[in-house]
Amino acid sequence: MKSDFIQRLRTAQTISSSVVCVGLDPDLDKLPEFLYQEHGSAASAVLAFNKAIIRATAPYACAYKLNAAFYESLGSCGFDVLKRTLGMIPKGKIHLVDAKRGDIGNTASKYADSLFGLLNTDGCTVAPYMGMDAAAPFLMYEDRAVFILVRTSNPSSDQLQSLMMDGLPLYAHVARLAAEWAEALPGTVGFVAGATHPAELLHLRKLYPHTPFLIPGVGAQGGSMDAVAQAATSDGLVLVNSSRGILYASSGEDFDEMAANAAKQLRETLNQAIHAHAD
Amino acid sequence: MKSDFIQRLRTAQTISSSVVCVGLDPDLDKLPEFLYQEHGSAASAVLAFNKAIIRATAPYACAYKLNAAFYESLGSCGFDVLKRTLGMIPKGKIHLVDAKRGDIGNTASKYADSLFGLLNTDGCTVAPYMGMDAAAPFLMYEDRAVFILVRTSNPSSDQLQSLMMDGLPLYAHVARLAAEWAEALPGTVGFVAGATHPAELLHLRKLYPHTPFLIPGVGAQGGSMDAVAQAATSDGLVLVNSSRGILYASSGEDFDEMAANAAKQLRETLNQAIHAHAD
Repeated sequence: MKSDFIQRLRTAQTISSSVVCVGLDPDLDKLPEFLYQEHGSAASAVLAFNKAIIRATAPYACAYKLNAAFYESLGSCGFDVLKRTLGMIPKGKIHLVDAKRGDIGNTASKYADSLFGLLNTDGCTVAPYMGMDAAAPFLMYEDRAVFILVRTSNPSSDQLQSLMMDGLPLYAHVARLAAEWAEALPGTVGFVAGATHPAELLHLRKLYPHTPFLIPGVGAQGGSMDAVAQAATSDGLVLVNSSRGILYASSGEDFDEMAANAAKQLRETLNQAIHAHAD
Repeated sequence: MKSDFIQRLRTAQTISSSVVCVGLDPDLDKLPEFLYQEHGSAASAVLAFNKAIIRATAPYACAYKLNAAFYESLGSCGFDVLKRTLGMIPKGKIHLVDAKRGDIGNTASKYADSLFGLLNTDGCTVAPYMGMDAAAPFLMYEDRAVFILVRTSNPSSDQLQSLMMDGLPLYAHVARLAAEWAEALPGTVGFVAGATHPAELLHLRKLYPHTPFLIPGVGAQGGSMDAVAQAATSDGLVLVNSSRGILYASSGEDFDEMAANAAKQLRETLNQAIHAHAD
């Protein structure tokens, strides 16, 4: 049944009173140095880091998003570190693997085998450039979510996404297509829509009030908290991701405590803004 | 110096008299069954398969392309199987990892660390939807090639790539952008342009006569050999990929011999067609 992911996300958000998604992007260049000294290998240091971050932030987050690149850059042990990190996430929280895959049908189904089969994650991100073929194998899993890159948060995202066609920017065409895929296939379709483009985020929300949005770009990328809050006051849920702003709030022994503070602060800021908009 | 990749590719093509790139997409559902019985684990069976395919096809191929999805779907051992397969490719051949990555700058640089650093491959594929940020970290490696998805071979590729803007389809805008990235950064930029869209392949070739093209879509996908040959008669080199048509030419004990025949046949067909067009 189509709403299983939505139901679980809604429950996770209610229990934590939070729309915060903690981005687990463990960057070896930014991890607290003492973790290496204590743990010897990069893999062990990352696992210890992730464990501490998850434990500290869990009261303030509804979800965790693991960015595949940071695990792949660990080499041989990357897959296992990613898998073990997914295993550390408390039951009841949502987890996503942000891998932005996108390929022809027979290849996309291998990516789906890996992310939804072997890693058994709740959702992932998919790039739209190759069309429905790239998303379909993921959307055959009825209890999972596929967040399609619609309007990304990065500086050069305008180069393609803002090109105008038939009076609409490319990202709006992508959103329309993704909504069609959602109609045709059992899985849940969400949109990636960055907080760094507040007008466009709200344009998408207006057109698609019932679609879950994964919103990057708050924190280190400087996105608009107000637009995010406005997008959140809708049937469609939002997942507001912060990675660097939480993970690297401190590089000292108090890194987990400071990460918890940052997650808590983000939750409060968002909840207040959402409350103000809902009134 | 910018042309290092081009130089190596040209030499590999001259020595093998071939523009054939063998796609190493080892699909566990299609591997000859006796390999499992002989080798016990999926990883060992894939390694034995790849080794035999590489040895048998090397006289007829200038390059090998490893599709990341098929390795990731092996789980924990995927990275090592991919790395060991790269190590089996004879010196003098080009190898690419087809991973179609595309992400914001700090993430893209982790993907580049993995593909160009740890795996040390000659080139890779990158998805353009997020703009230059996604390609730039790869293009900082001056001796490598980055093949940007321009016009892909799959059935649903029209959904976005054919949308018209300012009198040009989206894929032509992507090609223009990618050519700008090539100007700005030290690495070599190539295009992925499928043989299943012959008119568009030739349109791109006319606009970009000096750009290397990675051409999928011949063989199992039914692309046009004639258009490929025409695209090949240009300063810009072509790499013509075939995966399934070579790898699974036979599922019996003669799989490697039949793969060699298929690669040899593809080389002859292409060389004859190129020769005819060059006259």
